[in-house]
Amino acid sequence: MALDPDQTSVDSITLFVALLCSCIVIGHLLEKNRWFNESTTALAIGLCSGIIILLTTEGKRSHILVFNEELFFIYLLPPIIFNAGFQVKKKQFFRNFAMIILFGAVGTLISFVIVSIGTMQLFKKLDIGFLDIGDYLAIGAIFSATDSVCTLQVLNQDETPLLYSIVFGEGVVNDATSIVLFNAIQKFDLSHITLRIFIEFIGTSYTSLLQAHCLDFPMCICISCMVAKFVSSLFDLIFFVGLISAYIIKKLYIGRHPTDREVALMILMAYLSYMMAELFNLSSILTVFFCGIVMSHYTWHNVTESSRITTKHAFATLSFISEIFIFLYVGMDALDIEKWKVVSKSPGTSAGVSSILLGLVLVGRAASVFPLSFISNLFKRSESDKFTLKQQFVKQVTIWWAGLMRGSVSVALAYNQFTRSGHTQLRGNSIMITSTITVVLFSTVVFGLMTKPLIRLLLPSKHLCGGVSSGSFDSFPSKLMTDLPLIANGDAEVGGNNIPRPTSLRMLLATPTRTVHYYWRKFDDSVMRPMFGGRGFMPHVPGSPTEPLLH
Amino acid sequence: MALDPDQTSVDSITLFVALLCSCIVIGHLLEKNRWFNESTTALAIGLCSGIIILLTTEGKRSHILVFNEELFFIYLLPPIIFNAGFQVKKKQFFRNFAMIILFGAVGTLISFVIVSIGTMQLFKKLDIGFLDIGDYLAIGAIFSATDSVCTLQVLNQDETPLLYSIVFGEGVVNDATSIVLFNAIQKFDLSHITLRIFIEFIGTSYTSLLQAHCLDFPMCICISCMVAKFVSSLFDLIFFVGLISAYIIKKLYIGRHPTDREVALMILMAYLSYMMAELFNLSSILTVFFCGIVMSHYTWHNVTESSRITTKHAFATLSFISEIFIFLYVGMDALDIEKWKVVSKSPGTSAGVSSILLGLVLVGRAASVFPLSFISNLFKRSESDKFTLKQQFVKQVTIWWAGLMRGSVSVALAYNQFTRSGHTQLRGNSIMITSTITVVLFSTVVFGLMTKPLIRLLLPSKHLCGGVSSGSFDSFPSKLMTDLPLIANGDAEVGGNNIPRPTSLRMLLATPTRTVHYYWRKFDDSVMRPMFGGRGFMPHVPGSPTEPLLH
Repeated sequence: MALDPDQTSVDSITLFVALLCSCIVIGHLLEKNRWFNESTTALAIGLCSGIIILLTTEGKRSHILVFNEELFFIYLLPPIIFNAGFQVKKKQFFRNFAMIILFGAVGTLISFVIVSIGTMQLFKKLDIGFLDIGDYLAIGAIFSATDSVCTLQVLNQDETPLLYSIVFGEGVVNDATSIVLFNAIQKFDLSHITLRIFIEFIGTSYTSLLQAHCLDFPMCICISCMVAKFVSSLFDLIFFVGLISAYIIKKLYIGRHPTDREVALMILMAYLSYMMAELFNLSSILTVFFCGIVMSHYTWHNVTESSRITTKHAFATLSFISEIFIFLYVGMDALDIEKWKVVSKSPGTSAGVSSILLGLVLVGRAASVFPLSFISNLFKRSESDKFTLKQQFVKQVTIWWAGLMRGSVSVALAYNQFTRSGHTQLRGNSIMITSTITVVLFSTVVFGLMTKPLIRLLLPSKHLCGGVSSGSFDSFPSKLMTDLPLIANGDAEVGGNNIPRPTSLRMLLATPTRTVHYYWRKFDDSVMRPMFGGRGFMPHVPGSPTEPLLH
Repeated sequence: MALDPDQTSVDSITLFVALLCSCIVIGHLLEKNRWFNESTTALAIGLCSGIIILLTTEGKRSHILVFNEELFFIYLLPPIIFNAGFQVKKKQFFRNFAMIILFGAVGTLISFVIVSIGTMQLFKKLDIGFLDIGDYLAIGAIFSATDSVCTLQVLNQDETPLLYSIVFGEGVVNDATSIVLFNAIQKFDLSHITLRIFIEFIGTSYTSLLQAHCLDFPMCICISCMVAKFVSSLFDLIFFVGLISAYIIKKLYIGRHPTDREVALMILMAYLSYMMAELFNLSSILTVFFCGIVMSHYTWHNVTESSRITTKHAFATLSFISEIFIFLYVGMDALDIEKWKVVSKSPGTSAGVSSILLGLVLVGRAASVFPLSFISNLFKRSESDKFTLKQQFVKQVTIWWAGLMRGSVSVALAYNQFTRSGHTQLRGNSIMITSTITVVLFSTVVFGLMTKPLIRLLLPSKHLCGGVSSGSFDSFPSKLMTDLPLIANGDAEVGGNNIPRPTSLRMLLATPTRTVHYYWRKFDDSVMRPMFGGRGFMPHVPGSPTEPLLH
């Protein structure tokens, strides 16, 4: 999509836009089909058009647009992640905050170590050309992240709110973690590596995460580093962009609201948060995600009725188009003949590499989900909160399975790592890229398609349509480790009156999360909202029934 | 903005987005100022940041993004023109249809001939390096078109509906005309040109317009060619995209409307119409403009309430961002040091070229507006419709003045013509590019800023706030040549009952436009709307007050 005259021409853009339209129409027609969703439809259409182009150009090329890492990270990913933050159910998300951090940071690290060491050991037996230690670590980073874009497509926030918030929240956190790990690997000198240096490296990369975000924070263990990174990212964006946009719109536009300017300012400010995070080497994905949350909590309430409807749907639409774009792109690029030429000489090796990678992804995720769930279960205060082994196992299997998908972030990182030295002409590089594509296609199509039926099978049907129900699955991790709705959302009634005032220190110690929530609400109501606006702090326009229009 | 790693980096995009945000905020703060509008604010901010970059890089470069023709024509122009079509007052537009065509096609041709011949004669006396006949003709095409983007910024559809519809409609038509002329010049062999060949050339280019659009249409005079081009463009898009989108959305989504898909489909279909027109060498600007009209007449009525609000504002927002982007871009690019190095050696010549061009623009537009207005006045049927000479003169001056602005289309075409052979190193090319920028900045800033005060001065104040009033200025060209609301819009009451049924052939001959309108309405009600949906042909969702939300 780069405006290089060789690559992009009017006809390729026209064809691509026409394919996007057909994806939407066909995706809609297949909506009732339980096996299909928009992402697999787009992948299938991408593959089909790749085959057609391959046949019409007599095997010369399969894609009309070459997968471009910059296009992906600068233009396509931000709207998706921002929209996820903008539309996320804040209560549910912050309730499972600790679980998300644990899975996202520690879980990714476990997967990373397992995949790295596993490939190092297993690839020796296969003849796949030269790969150095940096390549193996990069493979670990590439395959340790659950894809948040796929998760959005497969899981439904209203049907399985808890599973969605854990797996998607984890996806956002570990997308960020794996990108940071990946960048750390590329900068690190890996020519003479031993196990000691490897352990040092993991420490360094986590410390660099920490240092990038809060310079004068004391060094501590990995988990707290990740939490600190998370919190500091949160504050970066809150002060830089999220709240500034809320403040500007509140100060400037009160009483006389031109919708176009408000919407334009919100879009540009959200994008600015992403680009500024990129510029200052913060985690741009985390930043834009929290920018979405802050904007929906403050800014969104300061704009006119029509701006609210417009932003709600315009952000969703931009995200929707970007998602389909990515899947179509990956599907079309998968058949690129260049890459497969080298591989076709040794199909067995390539299949072996793909199988090993898929196996390691399965094992890596199992090794992170099951022990972490077990540990978090130990932390429960009362016996009544604990579940039977069978109940636990079912839930862990669901979380394990729903996080197996690898997507376009993996493809983008693989291109970055394996096309630097001599493109795909090198045997090892060629095999790694085709294997990545195979793993992504297989995990998205097979694991993705089986997720919905699996959830229906494992979980009682009442939980699938109950929304924010308090059923066993929903209440399970909500009581698991924390109960902390840092930012209460308007969807559920978390009124200040419902929360008992902590009257003694003993009560505060007994119910820490409630106390944190209580003081946050108090701070929000007395300082934040009067300054930045928000629900109930802007004059309500009478006679405009917003709610029925917003689903 | 090309994803060339040399040109675009994270920091330049971040800076550019931050500047866009500041343009919106400062533009809003200066809203009450009668001299400023968003475009001049963006130009000023672009120039200021250009100076700052020039100082910080010690004179090495002034821009953060190089003006890129493809970015302009493929990504920035379509949303602006589409939105103009989507939001245009259809009744007013079609009432002045003949006038718009006359000014847009014949007027542009007159300007083109005057500017081309004028520069050929006058530039000989200046020492500006080698320019061939093709360059002179290109200059004619570059400077013969009123800029529709500037017009949108300066004129207000609600304050001066007639002036807006004529000057903007003309801008759309003659942007298209000048781009087609320009392309014809670049393809034509101009090495051995005489006056006879020149006249032949004009005939050929108009014929090629005709042939591109309706192959089996008989050859006729230029005006009818232009009308035919106009009509055929209209039909191209109606059958290709506008109506297809209406049909798809009506068939697929009735009863179960997912807003995001509807909005995504509308955006992609609109863009597809532009790209398809580019692909088939039709006039993409005209096509996307009419696609906007068709979508607002049919498609828009088939979607849900929230989709209507979203599309209305999302299109306006995209257009708004693109407009500011363009002006910021032009302002920042204007100071590019490379171009001015050659010119600075002979400031007198450069000033001379700019003055000659500005003079020719003024004369060229006068030579097209005044005679054409006079001719159209002759066609009036009754004596009572005619105006006094003074009234006429005032109106002609207003139309003449409001169409003097030259904008980013001129800059884009100038870059195309004068950077092909040896970039701006050649003296003549360098002078022409800097002169184009001078003319664009001068006409946008000086003419643009003076337009609002001039309108206030020349036209009685009641017409400025009357909306679709029937005052003298508004009624002037509406009765001028035609009275043909081809597609009636819902804003005004043009109900079928108000139009008397033509009972005899004599009446049909006496009131042809009313008859055309009557049959169009009948056809629209009986065939088009039941098939493609539209106002009153979709089930109304009760209890959703849309109108107060849409201004």
